[in-house]
Amino acid sequence: MNKWMEIAYDEAISGMSANEGGPFGAVIIKNGEIISSAHNEVLLCKDPTAHAEINAIRIASKKLNSFDLSGCTLYTTCMPCPMCLGAIMWARIGHVYFGATKEDAARGGFDDARFYEMLKGDAKSLDLQQIDHKENAKLFDIWNQQTHTMY
Amino acid sequence: MNKWMEIAYDEAISGMSANEGGPFGAVIIKNGEIISSAHNEVLLCKDPTAHAEINAIRIASKKLNSFDLSGCTLYTTCMPCPMCLGAIMWARIGHVYFGATKEDAARGGFDDARFYEMLKGDAKSLDLQQIDHKENAKLFDIWNQQTHTMY
Repeated sequence: MNKWMEIAYDEAISGMSANEGGPFGAVIIKNGEIISSAHNEVLLCKDPTAHAEINAIRIASKKLNSFDLSGCTLYTTCMPCPMCLGAIMWARIGHVYFGATKEDAARGGFDDARFYEMLKGDAKSLDLQQIDHKENAKLFDIWNQQTHTMY
Repeated sequence: MNKWMEIAYDEAISGMSANEGGPFGAVIIKNGEIISSAHNEVLLCKDPTAHAEINAIRIASKKLNSFDLSGCTLYTTCMPCPMCLGAIMWARIGHVYFGATKEDAARGGFDDARFYEMLKGDAKSLDLQQIDHKENAKLFDIWNQQTHTMY
């Protein structure tokens, strides 16, 4: 196994064994060094967002003191779910190596198929309604009137 | 404005004014009561995952001591990005009211159009490669051999 993936795999085993969450692990590498490694902690933290990739990103951001993880590579034991793919893109991580497939995860009861359907515009699984458009759209006018150097 | 959206809106204004993050706010309601309210803290926390919706979900999960937010409704000042939509679905939040559109957000420099392209299978914006499939697929066999009551 790839040496970084092996660390992600060990994370998955250790998290699952401790009943901290599902069998998922991730590591973030920059310039040939580990920046962070993490596993799924949804059960431990009772936090639905505590996926291995999100945890690894949060630790790496703290360590590098930046929300911008450009130049980092992520190794993850399973194809990231849409939430984690979004986090990876916001973090500007350019390269991702994953092990298991969505279908493997579904076999373990972790099925994100309906997420992809929803993101394609099929709102059956989520009641998503727009209200108060005009007032909220103004937030971006206020934002644009400010000076921002960091975003 | 809807009374819950007004609280989300005030969160957005307060976060933006304090330069803690972009102009986004969210609240989570259950049985007519506020469970959590939050704003974007990407700049404050230097955490790319610290969107208003994710923060609100994390606070609500802590408060309700559960990763399962079934029965909750989320009000957010802007159409949630794919990361946050994923988090909403993992949290089992069934109803979402949003204010501004993706296009409004893009006007402020918050453009997630490439995320949707990527989730449709267009990998141009992210180098996503599979390695070590066999070993990682086994994680779900190990998982299935364990007894899980909480997931």
